[in-house]
Amino acid sequence: MKKVALFILSGMSIQVSAQQLPTEAKDVIKSIYTEALGEQQGYKWLHHICTEIGPRPSGSDAANQAAEYTKQMMLDAGADTAWLQPVEVPKWHRGAEWSKAFAGGESVALPTTALGGSVPTPKEGIRAAVVEVGSFEELEALGKEGLEGKIVFYNTYMDHSLISTFNAYGGAVKYRWAGAMEAGKYGAVATVMRSVTLLRDDLPHTGAMSYGESEVKIPTAAISWLAADKLEKMLGDGLVELELFLDCGVQGTAINYNMIADFKGAEKPEEIMLVGGHIDSWDLGQGAQDDGAGCAHAMQVPNLLKKVGYKNNRTIRVVLWANEEFGLDGAKEYARWAKSEGVHHWVAMESDAGGDVPRGFGISADDIRLEQVRTYKELLSPYGLHVFAKGGGGADLGPLRGYDDFFIGYRPESQRYFDFHHSARDNINAIHPRSLEMGAASMSALFYLLDHLE
Amino acid sequence: MKKVALFILSGMSIQVSAQQLPTEAKDVIKSIYTEALGEQQGYKWLHHICTEIGPRPSGSDAANQAAEYTKQMMLDAGADTAWLQPVEVPKWHRGAEWSKAFAGGESVALPTTALGGSVPTPKEGIRAAVVEVGSFEELEALGKEGLEGKIVFYNTYMDHSLISTFNAYGGAVKYRWAGAMEAGKYGAVATVMRSVTLLRDDLPHTGAMSYGESEVKIPTAAISWLAADKLEKMLGDGLVELELFLDCGVQGTAINYNMIADFKGAEKPEEIMLVGGHIDSWDLGQGAQDDGAGCAHAMQVPNLLKKVGYKNNRTIRVVLWANEEFGLDGAKEYARWAKSEGVHHWVAMESDAGGDVPRGFGISADDIRLEQVRTYKELLSPYGLHVFAKGGGGADLGPLRGYDDFFIGYRPESQRYFDFHHSARDNINAIHPRSLEMGAASMSALFYLLDHLE
Repeated sequence: MKKVALFILSGMSIQVSAQQLPTEAKDVIKSIYTEALGEQQGYKWLHHICTEIGPRPSGSDAANQAAEYTKQMMLDAGADTAWLQPVEVPKWHRGAEWSKAFAGGESVALPTTALGGSVPTPKEGIRAAVVEVGSFEELEALGKEGLEGKIVFYNTYMDHSLISTFNAYGGAVKYRWAGAMEAGKYGAVATVMRSVTLLRDDLPHTGAMSYGESEVKIPTAAISWLAADKLEKMLGDGLVELELFLDCGVQGTAINYNMIADFKGAEKPEEIMLVGGHIDSWDLGQGAQDDGAGCAHAMQVPNLLKKVGYKNNRTIRVVLWANEEFGLDGAKEYARWAKSEGVHHWVAMESDAGGDVPRGFGISADDIRLEQVRTYKELLSPYGLHVFAKGGGGADLGPLRGYDDFFIGYRPESQRYFDFHHSARDNINAIHPRSLEMGAASMSALFYLLDHLE
Repeated sequence: MKKVALFILSGMSIQVSAQQLPTEAKDVIKSIYTEALGEQQGYKWLHHICTEIGPRPSGSDAANQAAEYTKQMMLDAGADTAWLQPVEVPKWHRGAEWSKAFAGGESVALPTTALGGSVPTPKEGIRAAVVEVGSFEELEALGKEGLEGKIVFYNTYMDHSLISTFNAYGGAVKYRWAGAMEAGKYGAVATVMRSVTLLRDDLPHTGAMSYGESEVKIPTAAISWLAADKLEKMLGDGLVELELFLDCGVQGTAINYNMIADFKGAEKPEEIMLVGGHIDSWDLGQGAQDDGAGCAHAMQVPNLLKKVGYKNNRTIRVVLWANEEFGLDGAKEYARWAKSEGVHHWVAMESDAGGDVPRGFGISADDIRLEQVRTYKELLSPYGLHVFAKGGGGADLGPLRGYDDFFIGYRPESQRYFDFHHSARDNINAIHPRSLEMGAASMSALFYLLDHLE
């Protein structure tokens, strides 16, 4: 075994066991990218999922069609086994939805969508005066006196100055998640919010919300960026009333499925290299970026390695989880089952950050393993991979934490992601074929390298 | 002056004079990005150029309107001087254009566009049998016997396996440039080619071609990717005739203008830091990516530095060159004038690779200067800048080479660029506002750092 001395910034130097990489490693990696960019098989799969199957919200038949389709594709690609694991999920319903703002005798229709999990409005809708807040602090300051009987407008923003749009999302999404719960405490009758996006357009963006333990459940919706601008302007001019209608809600449960496909390893079949994305999506678009791209990425990993003639030492397992968006049910069920079976995930990689060009990976592992992965930087940097950050994985790997200990999250460029996220814009046109395939090849190249690591 | 020891991979260690960077450098850079991503001024300028002015081909009035507009915008942004430098350019004309393939009693219309510089067909068009070639070698092998009186179809491709699409372009564009000249030698009556693109769609892509010194001038056009697929399939089934009609050509000359705006330096006003893009575009789209983006980038550099309150030591000069696409006339005229005036360009940076997210810079300089620039990597890598390659600049800086010696080319992500390039798709919708502004901020941050270098 070759030893590589790595110089750590602290000044401490540690010895890292390097894998014995075959001399042809560089050529194999090149051939992985060539295959991906030529055949574009991941894009073809994704195109089918988006355009032939469509939106795959929690509890939908479409989610099950996608599970069936991807299982068949994995068998066609040479999987040794592929099966569907049943998962009980909430069944989400969305019907008609709209809102209108009234001020000074004028009315303005605002593109509106219920947040996932919202209760419906009464059939006659809700009409009330609007109170604008920019934060929970402002909400609290207004209190019951300022909010009772009102509709709260969360005029909150993703922080445009943050370079990682995921960080910007992290700072803004709390108003989506808890906005209704917090406003309900003060007697508000409904909430609307500026969509959690950075694109200044006219599409509303949905996403999960929660009432927590609260028994007060008020309807809650997002309006488009431009609608929020209009509402803000109207409020600047004086009193505004909003009329809100939402036909939506959770209607019991249904069975969806995790898709699990194994490509058996020749030497260490019991060591699982898991790669996954989630097969469900929100209902407004086709779930192309979120997370059809991740499914295509994951499916491409064993496919590309087979296409270039590589025989994996460990077992490569593709998992496409059910219902990530609305409760992580698929991930929880998979983890429960894996633990009960004593499955050992030697590594688990997730793609749930879209299909744009590669930047790199976030890696949750001990320092030695992290440094081992970082030794691949030289081989991978010609492909635009320059981020090998400490910490990463993804929501669907969460339930495996503490049980296994080596997680990787694929990190594509993030600038465009929230333009599409949870909106009608997240359709196949949101996907750039080459960029998607660059991601698939990057994940495959990393798995190829990792499969040589002891 | 601080000295920084840089360890070079060869094992040799050299001393690099570092600039005295102010302690607030990190904060200034952050504020540049925040300003760019918030105000999106570059995108606003570009939006106007694309949608209010439109395509700006060589010799067009629109190119002059854009020069006037950008001059005014630079004065509004606080330029000390801004003026228009006249440049004589060829006047390009494009009228109707189409082609139809005939085989077995069927006819198929093929989306077609004349290459820039092509002679027109006769008014009745040209109809002849088609001969497909995949390279100049195949053309030569067919010779006069195989080609006389025929229409040559260059079924040539950008190499999809190359990660830099600019490298792939470099390998394929020779068939656009010289395809008609070469086929004309063997008596062919016209040529069509598969568009130089990587996107499998139905838009043809134009671009400059040349007859060199040849007196034989045959009409030449590009057809869309999907049209080329159809033609290839028809040829696989047997004989195909093509009917081609092109109303196009160079119609004398006209005056266009270089836009030159100076933001005077406080300490070394005679040292010019040039930043530029080209104001002309091809005629099929709005020239958003090529090179409206580069113009917006260049204009943002002094604007962003002013907005964050930075006072430049050297003079920042924005140059938006006339007619890059069809002969580099603006760049040649600017260089001629600059040399005659003894202008000293301390550094010259060009953006002509589109408006996608930043990857880094290509730097033409001696090794010491190159290593100096590379010391900025740590400050700039949080913004996605990881490429600091040796060699770079751009076509419009070419005429300054040998006279000055420090050139930088901005390098955005290249995956999408040739989807748009020289086609009707290159309109404002091709531009992602945040990605564009990330580029403007990256170039501004680098100029801020360089302005401290001795």
